[in-house]
Amino acid sequence: MTQWVYSFGGGESAGDASMKTLLGGKGANLAEMAKLGLPVPPGFTLTTEVCTEFYKNDRKYPAELAAQVDAALASLEKKADKKFGDAANPLLVSVRSGARASMPGMMDTVLNLGLNDATVEGLAKLSGDPRFAYDSYRRFIQMYSDVVLELDHGAFEETLGALKDERDYRSDTEMNADDWKQIVAEFKRIVERQLGKPFPSDPKEQLWGAIGAVFASWMNDRAIFYRKHNNIPESWGTAVNVQAMVFGNMGDTSATGVAFTRDPSTGEKKFYGEYLINAQGEDVVAGIRTPKPLTKAARQAMGEGGQSLEEAMPEVFAELTRVYQSLEAHYRDMQDLEFTVERGRLYMLQTRNGKRTAKAALKIAVDMAREKLISENEAILRIDPMQLDQLLHPTICPNYHRSLICKGLPASPGAAVGIVVFDPDEAAALAADGRAVILVREETSPEDIHGMHASKAIVTARGGMTSHAAVVARGMGRPCVSGAGEIRIDIEEGVFRVGSRIVKKGETITVDGSMGEVLMGAAEMVQPELTGDFGTLMAWADKVRRMQVRANAETPEDARTAVKFGAEGIGLCRTEHMFFDAERIAAVREMILADKQEARVAALAKLEPHQRKDFAEIFRIMGERPVTIRFLDPPLHEFLPHTEEDCADVAKATGLDARALLARSRELHETNPMLGFRGCRLAIVYPEIYDMQARAIFEAACDVAAETGKAPAAEIMIPFVISKQEFDLIKARVDRVAAQVFAAKGRTLDYLVGTMIELPRAALRAGEIAQSAEFFSFGTNDLTQTAMGLSRDDAGKFLGTFVERHVLPHDPFVSIDAEGVGELVGLACERGRAARKRLKLGVCGEHGGDPASVAFFERAGLDYVSCSPYRVPIARLAAAQAARGGGEEPVLPQR
Amino acid sequence: MTQWVYSFGGGESAGDASMKTLLGGKGANLAEMAKLGLPVPPGFTLTTEVCTEFYKNDRKYPAELAAQVDAALASLEKKADKKFGDAANPLLVSVRSGARASMPGMMDTVLNLGLNDATVEGLAKLSGDPRFAYDSYRRFIQMYSDVVLELDHGAFEETLGALKDERDYRSDTEMNADDWKQIVAEFKRIVERQLGKPFPSDPKEQLWGAIGAVFASWMNDRAIFYRKHNNIPESWGTAVNVQAMVFGNMGDTSATGVAFTRDPSTGEKKFYGEYLINAQGEDVVAGIRTPKPLTKAARQAMGEGGQSLEEAMPEVFAELTRVYQSLEAHYRDMQDLEFTVERGRLYMLQTRNGKRTAKAALKIAVDMAREKLISENEAILRIDPMQLDQLLHPTICPNYHRSLICKGLPASPGAAVGIVVFDPDEAAALAADGRAVILVREETSPEDIHGMHASKAIVTARGGMTSHAAVVARGMGRPCVSGAGEIRIDIEEGVFRVGSRIVKKGETITVDGSMGEVLMGAAEMVQPELTGDFGTLMAWADKVRRMQVRANAETPEDARTAVKFGAEGIGLCRTEHMFFDAERIAAVREMILADKQEARVAALAKLEPHQRKDFAEIFRIMGERPVTIRFLDPPLHEFLPHTEEDCADVAKATGLDARALLARSRELHETNPMLGFRGCRLAIVYPEIYDMQARAIFEAACDVAAETGKAPAAEIMIPFVISKQEFDLIKARVDRVAAQVFAAKGRTLDYLVGTMIELPRAALRAGEIAQSAEFFSFGTNDLTQTAMGLSRDDAGKFLGTFVERHVLPHDPFVSIDAEGVGELVGLACERGRAARKRLKLGVCGEHGGDPASVAFFERAGLDYVSCSPYRVPIARLAAAQAARGGGEEPVLPQR
Repeated sequence: MTQWVYSFGGGESAGDASMKTLLGGKGANLAEMAKLGLPVPPGFTLTTEVCTEFYKNDRKYPAELAAQVDAALASLEKKADKKFGDAANPLLVSVRSGARASMPGMMDTVLNLGLNDATVEGLAKLSGDPRFAYDSYRRFIQMYSDVVLELDHGAFEETLGALKDERDYRSDTEMNADDWKQIVAEFKRIVERQLGKPFPSDPKEQLWGAIGAVFASWMNDRAIFYRKHNNIPESWGTAVNVQAMVFGNMGDTSATGVAFTRDPSTGEKKFYGEYLINAQGEDVVAGIRTPKPLTKAARQAMGEGGQSLEEAMPEVFAELTRVYQSLEAHYRDMQDLEFTVERGRLYMLQTRNGKRTAKAALKIAVDMAREKLISENEAILRIDPMQLDQLLHPTICPNYHRSLICKGLPASPGAAVGIVVFDPDEAAALAADGRAVILVREETSPEDIHGMHASKAIVTARGGMTSHAAVVARGMGRPCVSGAGEIRIDIEEGVFRVGSRIVKKGETITVDGSMGEVLMGAAEMVQPELTGDFGTLMAWADKVRRMQVRANAETPEDARTAVKFGAEGIGLCRTEHMFFDAERIAAVREMILADKQEARVAALAKLEPHQRKDFAEIFRIMGERPVTIRFLDPPLHEFLPHTEEDCADVAKATGLDARALLARSRELHETNPMLGFRGCRLAIVYPEIYDMQARAIFEAACDVAAETGKAPAAEIMIPFVISKQEFDLIKARVDRVAAQVFAAKGRTLDYLVGTMIELPRAALRAGEIAQSAEFFSFGTNDLTQTAMGLSRDDAGKFLGTFVERHVLPHDPFVSIDAEGVGELVGLACERGRAARKRLKLGVCGEHGGDPASVAFFERAGLDYVSCSPYRVPIARLAAAQAARGGGEEPVLPQR
Repeated sequence: MTQWVYSFGGGESAGDASMKTLLGGKGANLAEMAKLGLPVPPGFTLTTEVCTEFYKNDRKYPAELAAQVDAALASLEKKADKKFGDAANPLLVSVRSGARASMPGMMDTVLNLGLNDATVEGLAKLSGDPRFAYDSYRRFIQMYSDVVLELDHGAFEETLGALKDERDYRSDTEMNADDWKQIVAEFKRIVERQLGKPFPSDPKEQLWGAIGAVFASWMNDRAIFYRKHNNIPESWGTAVNVQAMVFGNMGDTSATGVAFTRDPSTGEKKFYGEYLINAQGEDVVAGIRTPKPLTKAARQAMGEGGQSLEEAMPEVFAELTRVYQSLEAHYRDMQDLEFTVERGRLYMLQTRNGKRTAKAALKIAVDMAREKLISENEAILRIDPMQLDQLLHPTICPNYHRSLICKGLPASPGAAVGIVVFDPDEAAALAADGRAVILVREETSPEDIHGMHASKAIVTARGGMTSHAAVVARGMGRPCVSGAGEIRIDIEEGVFRVGSRIVKKGETITVDGSMGEVLMGAAEMVQPELTGDFGTLMAWADKVRRMQVRANAETPEDARTAVKFGAEGIGLCRTEHMFFDAERIAAVREMILADKQEARVAALAKLEPHQRKDFAEIFRIMGERPVTIRFLDPPLHEFLPHTEEDCADVAKATGLDARALLARSRELHETNPMLGFRGCRLAIVYPEIYDMQARAIFEAACDVAAETGKAPAAEIMIPFVISKQEFDLIKARVDRVAAQVFAAKGRTLDYLVGTMIELPRAALRAGEIAQSAEFFSFGTNDLTQTAMGLSRDDAGKFLGTFVERHVLPHDPFVSIDAEGVGELVGLACERGRAARKRLKLGVCGEHGGDPASVAFFERAGLDYVSCSPYRVPIARLAAAQAARGGGEEPVLPQR
């Protein structure tokens, strides 16, 4: 026979903490605590299977359930030494939901169940407090009417209000026992009027009503919505916990409180929490009275009067201390506790792993590993890598009072202060003068890069989490708020408006990229700390991870940041951004306008010294670490002005012909630039471009080797390949340039030539391509765009709806689409390695810094992931977790 | 020991026609003819393996070669009854290349080899014609000096010119024996001066020189270029044929000629050809004298005087007749022959399968099958399906004198006459008045569809073979010339210019879409004939093909054409073009501008009757044949005006708000529309659009079933799916609409709901999608775009270069990229059928009408291909060939 009901309490339990699937989180933890001999009010749990059966069978319970509930109730009466419905010694119970995953506030609860006109008198006598008894009774009627009977609660409030007016009371605390008794009578009349029959006085009827309501609440709109948004399957169902009531509001020897076994905001190892004498849990939450700290030390530190629990109830506090210590030791994690003291007796109502800040999570994990409570590996698995992001950037001081201008998307984390600038050139000029600037734009484009680089933070009125501004800002480690839709920029007036508020160019603002907020004025900041616990945890992570972690970096500043954050090389050094520099763009445009090869070669010759200097600087910083340099990738029209007006401006500034510029710009215009004339396609038609880049790389590498005695390890990456033929044509030219440079410089350096795998055909033909390519780097951004037919620039408009409607499980530009795009990655790895056993495999798309994707890449067997410098620590930790997860998603502590 | 040399002639041969790989095409056919006992001048072939060895061993011959050549030469002397280098009875030979595949004019030939100061006298005596002998000698020196010695030929021509001037001769024919003798002496002096040694007089030395030159010519630039462009592997090598010379210029009993065993332009079964008395092959080609017909009947039909070969040399003619008949019977195909008559004796110099027009190919194949010369299956394999295209469209009368305005790309075959119109609306209006119009545009866009439909042909100044105009025109069967870059349209003046020529609106022009020509005036036309031989061959093809052939058709006219051409259903009925009609576009725009669901529903309600009528007409035409209707696919911005000006115009015309139009148009603008908010993504956000379309389909189907008694077989196709979830959401709504309509109409019809597979992710997730989808139709256009990262609208700019440089073997939008895109198709078929055994599989991309692609789809196991109506016969034949090819590329006769 199926066991539908599990009892707990009185020093024994049918279940335990491992049975969350069957008993729900709350039920399993109550069972576990009882089993540990901790003071838990006894009770029983109706399993999640009851819920499943209930819905499977048209809302009917399993046949055996009633008998099992009766037996559990009898056992509960025995343990509590009270009787359900007994007028003299009544047992009151709470009925609460408890699903596998916490769904706070989503489902229903009924307290004080078992009260009726007879038992309320027993409660009054037992507690010696008739006011308390009738207040409890009226609360029960209210709650039951709302949750179980689904009656309108307006009438209750009106009635209570009318009585208070009549008595001239300001608050409920002035109500006395008789007042509550009168209210109870009136509430019962209201129920009978609305329901057409009296309020149920039979406690068993009450109990089944409440059980039914909790199961029904599994399918209420709130719960369905919450499940959808949190990916909780409907099939899990909820359990129902029926537990003896204990009362913290039975006078001054009673109390209620919440506690954390360590400080949830700093992680310090000190008992932390609050309590209220003579109160119920709701009172702590309601905020009518101010709770007191639990410990004397905390009270004193806060400079408060009154008494801590330690001082007011030293024996209870001593027991609570023993309990919390044993719970933390037992669960091997920081616990979040709820307790009640009923007339000097401690009852534990809940324990669970406590939520904590990133900083606290780090400190707790490191401390616990040092205390040998958990292993270093467990410590690694305890940290959500994404949380680290909060620790790597300057943040706004938690106590700072924020003057919000507007909200947008938290596109790139961290915070920064600066003056408002609207024009990228102006931003660059002011930054050169040492001013801290914040670039505020409608949206950004590749032409704005220099201004973005010069700015401390970026704000855009349009664009999503994967807009140009967002992607570039994350890459540069600049805080960014994107899609701040309320902002209206008026360039001519030199202001932006949010509603009626006007912010002028030059005014100081603060951008909080972690929260997506734009604030007036200069906020106080907190700087990140990369040593201490952070350094310790990273060192542990580095010991266990298999994959290397590189950074995407294209400037010396990026490279230095990358090294600081522990990058083991550069996985993607884009070269196109180097072309946008003011000194260079003219030569780039000249090259694009050239209609003969010689003219192109001449224009490229002007760029070459710049490129050589770029590469030399990066090689100097990176030493012997590998540096993957990607040849020019974007379509050429990205370097040209597009409108007639812009062409005229550029012509004036550069001496180029405005009409030729416009004509060429139109000629190069593309309907779908993502699928256009870009990447190595440029070099098939204009091979001299990559020749120049190869020469700059090899010359820089030779020069730096001569200067530093360290041999740079260049890995040359050819973008947008779809066939071996393409790759071979280009590789042959690279090798020829290398041989020429090495001969001229009298020095030979090792280098690799490999390719991006960023198109489905490249993944499919990987076996062939790997015959020539010495490494693959997965460009999962473009691979996602093409495999899914989703333009990253455009998908923002509907991707939200798609994830909401579960057409897609998540944004595939954030976490890799393992089933689709991932299969292509897997295929390419397999085919590539079959053709070349030691083929180096890496990833350089945005996914390289996403923990779920990193776990996927570990399973796929990549050699390294590469991500923006600020994500390097995240990737290091995620890679360690993935290595420890044995190819599964990292198991994080329940929160 | 390897046999490097194969002799032929004298009624025996070491080789035969099956040995093309070893002996080359010419050598194998000469051997075969000799073996058949036909009069072939004897000779021998140095095999292609000699060539391969030659290049493998640093241009050295195999050791045994010299001895084998000596032996073959001895045997040749015996058969010819002449001796090489014998002054009295000299053997002269030709030395010719002959590769496996014909490479006309690419490699070198030396004639009259063996002549020197001694043998020339023997030749003079034997022929009784010293002038002939010395002329032959000087030709030999010239040819040998050019081909073997690689000397500059300018000096020869100067010397000859000088002598002719001196003698006051106008042409070579005036030169007498002594003149030629003098020239020979001077030529030899020129050689000695340039070479530093005398012209080789030893025939053996001459022979080895010529053999070496022919082998060397395998690697000359012309040959390398030709091989690259014709995909002939370098490793094949060439053979060298050494053959006894015969002379058609030994007086009036000698002659030379070419012949076809049937008429190569009509296919009629009559001997066809030309000859010249007392001439060499070169003379026929040179065109100095006009050749005469071979038969008396032909001569009389042409109204010519003189004598046919039949009349002049009846015995030779009788023998030639026996020879050609036996050759045709032997090769079982129409033969292209070369022959020489030397003093009344017939020699066959060459036979090969003859080139022919499409019409002739058809007639010959059908006739030969009827004659039982070949089987019906062979007849099917004999026709290049693409050739059929010439037969399916009206064409310009071959004798019509063309007045060319300009050339462009042959974007859509057929020819049409009409008056020039520049505006699509005007085209539609004039066509409605019964005028034949030709739309001339810069380029076309989806908004021009109605005008394109109304036109007889389309000309664009820009765009390639896969531009919008080209694709749509092929789909509609309208002739189209695209990319006619010389055209400058001046809308305001109402003219277009080509150079200084001006063509006005309203002037009559003719468009030849097969040739890519635009002509002045109305050309005489020939209408296609779909019965007769064509019908017979199609019936034979239909008997053997496995795959069904459907048409892509979206108008009643298309549907009728499709049925006429034998389509077995509609594989793709796009619905978006139905939205562009003037009456409807306003409602479409209203729908797009609506910001509330109700407003969208109201606008859609206006479209519904139109859609219902569209579908009803198509169902009526198609009867019980399946009709696959694709729900709305393009991004919504395609239906909106884009510029401020256009928005104002539309606003004026429709009463919509211009600013709202522009704002919405900008809001919907996409960076990469190909990868944007389109296909079923529209229906995820605006489900009411597909609801309307589904209702229109089911209501129309029920109405037509009631009216005709025939149940339409609707197959509803959901575009741009990437996940089962998407498909399920939409299918559920379709099924609900169907149930509603069937209930209302009191009739239930069968229908299928399936999906396009047009994105890599859809192909990869096919197993999952097929759990819900009842059919797949491969949208190989978009699948190619995404798998290869190639925008069809943009790739035209570089695809040519890519194919030229062999980065891609062919344009992947013309023939499917079997290795990349094809693997995705294969995977999807496999996974789809694993999930749903009877999953219906088809293709509806442009590839459905491409024979190479059809062969691929046969191998992939598709159930049908669908292509534009005019391609249906091509697809039927290609499908038959593919079925007979047993999964291989169809084997076509050598040409």
